[in-house]
Amino acid sequence: MLMKHGMPSRLAFLDCAKNCMLASSPVFRRQQFLIRSLGGASDHQIHFAKMKDLKSVEADAESILRAITPPLDPSRHKGQAGKIAVIGGCREYTGAPYFAAISALKIGADLSHVFCTKDAAPVIKSYSPELIVHPVLEESYSIRDEDKRSIASKVLSEVDKWMERFDCLVIGPGLGRDPFLLDCVSEIMRLAKKSNIPMVIDGDGLFLVTNNLDLVSGYALAVLTPNVNEYKRLVQKVLSSEVNDLDAPQQLLSLAKQIGNLTILRKGKSDLISDGETVKSVSIFGSPRRCGGQGDILSGSVAVFLSWARQHILAADANTNLSSKNPTVLGSIAGSALVRKAASLAFLNKKRSTVTGDIIECLGRSLEDIIPAS
Amino acid sequence: MLMKHGMPSRLAFLDCAKNCMLASSPVFRRQQFLIRSLGGASDHQIHFAKMKDLKSVEADAESILRAITPPLDPSRHKGQAGKIAVIGGCREYTGAPYFAAISALKIGADLSHVFCTKDAAPVIKSYSPELIVHPVLEESYSIRDEDKRSIASKVLSEVDKWMERFDCLVIGPGLGRDPFLLDCVSEIMRLAKKSNIPMVIDGDGLFLVTNNLDLVSGYALAVLTPNVNEYKRLVQKVLSSEVNDLDAPQQLLSLAKQIGNLTILRKGKSDLISDGETVKSVSIFGSPRRCGGQGDILSGSVAVFLSWARQHILAADANTNLSSKNPTVLGSIAGSALVRKAASLAFLNKKRSTVTGDIIECLGRSLEDIIPAS
Repeated sequence: MLMKHGMPSRLAFLDCAKNCMLASSPVFRRQQFLIRSLGGASDHQIHFAKMKDLKSVEADAESILRAITPPLDPSRHKGQAGKIAVIGGCREYTGAPYFAAISALKIGADLSHVFCTKDAAPVIKSYSPELIVHPVLEESYSIRDEDKRSIASKVLSEVDKWMERFDCLVIGPGLGRDPFLLDCVSEIMRLAKKSNIPMVIDGDGLFLVTNNLDLVSGYALAVLTPNVNEYKRLVQKVLSSEVNDLDAPQQLLSLAKQIGNLTILRKGKSDLISDGETVKSVSIFGSPRRCGGQGDILSGSVAVFLSWARQHILAADANTNLSSKNPTVLGSIAGSALVRKAASLAFLNKKRSTVTGDIIECLGRSLEDIIPAS
Repeated sequence: MLMKHGMPSRLAFLDCAKNCMLASSPVFRRQQFLIRSLGGASDHQIHFAKMKDLKSVEADAESILRAITPPLDPSRHKGQAGKIAVIGGCREYTGAPYFAAISALKIGADLSHVFCTKDAAPVIKSYSPELIVHPVLEESYSIRDEDKRSIASKVLSEVDKWMERFDCLVIGPGLGRDPFLLDCVSEIMRLAKKSNIPMVIDGDGLFLVTNNLDLVSGYALAVLTPNVNEYKRLVQKVLSSEVNDLDAPQQLLSLAKQIGNLTILRKGKSDLISDGETVKSVSIFGSPRRCGGQGDILSGSVAVFLSWARQHILAADANTNLSSKNPTVLGSIAGSALVRKAASLAFLNKKRSTVTGDIIECLGRSLEDIIPAS
């Protein structure tokens, strides 16, 4: 089936090897020459020209969602469908961590925590009694230099006592860029790695990681979810080059490989996902609205699906028919597809006035359409 | 009628004497032997095998709900349908006490109070103007050691001046585990006992009680509502053994008897309720969602129904046809049945995205279905 932006619910699997082979084929190079010669072919045409020979590696995001979403079994108890924690929320930003954390619950996680600064906590709590909000982070403006060491140690111990309980962390929504706070978050990430807790890294978490690649390098349970600008900074930093949209899958694959053994979900018109081995794409039609906060929904969603995919793979003991056995790739595909579907539903109803909360309210119905709860 | 999980609206009364008799019958023992010999029969099969001979002691939770729910009489004044107070809410937890307190109102109590820490109060107030929230509790981090005695005394006097007005306390939702705060709550429980105020104890209240059994031992107006993990700790502490699911009713009865003259509502796939004399079960189908907060709804609901059952028994002067005359048992059955019915309704509508607030919104309709207000 042809992949075309705007067509409902399809996932293109862009196999890396095949992509490289195509790039070197005379037919493909001639196509590219013709497109360039025509002077400014639209993105859509380029996308179409690049994709039409890749139909044999396409797959269906819905089959992944169906495979990894756990059954609703009355014998299960609280926590078994997922415990997520968002590290984010500071004096300036409170909406982003809320969006990420509440999205996790609305998809079906059992418990959703937020670790934020003391200023942000009462506000995030007030958005919803469903979240457990820990006022433990500190920003430089509120502490003295001589207290930094002891406060950092206290922050770490507060988070550490919870760490083992979580199935996934989301690092970054509304984190801000305070240096002391980011130092503490670096230590939290090191703790998470020690305990093999998966991490989805977005927003200011990506700012932190781009400047400290060792925090994620070689950690197979990390997912980065950059938008256009965050991706640009990553490419500049890691590949010392500019973003090349004509060869996006290959560049994404190189970036993931270069950082080493992690997964990147590059957000865009189509979302591209690579773990350095394969490149996959999710092009389900979402919404033309670009209201802030949609990335936060995605990070919370990927966290839940990543946890479920990990459980599924462990339980299936590798006897699964899925095209990938990498839970970070599966979680990214599922999260990307579901959020796009929810955005599309919300836009149908709210049009230009669609805001992030409207999309969150459509997460449940979108999942139900794909995998009915009973 | 056969008891079967998933069947609508039935209540099994497992009479203790009958249970003991069954346990010693050769037929029953042979059944158990066969089940064990088959090696890993499902929970459902075991449940079914154990229950099918108990149909003669089944009863209907709805008849209890109808009997104890007071009529809506225009001549009654504010407060007569119940005044509930939740002791809980600290720096970390604000959702849990809110869920318990608002559930009490949504079932039909007239007034619902929360006694929480100073940090938690503005947040809990912000969830709803319907609640009366007292910022009176203190945690260790905010006070100096030398002030502890005077602050404890102040906390006690603040709560004490309200105590006589309440029909039931809910101890524990979002209480946290701060040692100073728990010491104050121990004193509040002693005050409540002196005034014969019933208490429903959940969450961190159970942590406190498990380590201080004298707080509830011999107090017939106490109900403990442990979940899987809280029950495990109680059994280990009191019976010095592990949880035995094959003989769950007998073990629960022994536990209640051993602590002495109180009621335990053991939450699970079926809820089991014992006051040390009988064991009853509520198996109405609820919801397979295990989002955090459902236990808080239950604690607030049991508090209201316990108060109503107590009023009913006093008014009926023992001329009631109910199978139990114990208000803590009746309140537990009614609360368990109503919350399960509400969860089931909420799940019908919201499926995997059901959160605790959705269930609370279904409490009123669930009660109306059983006992229409007019």
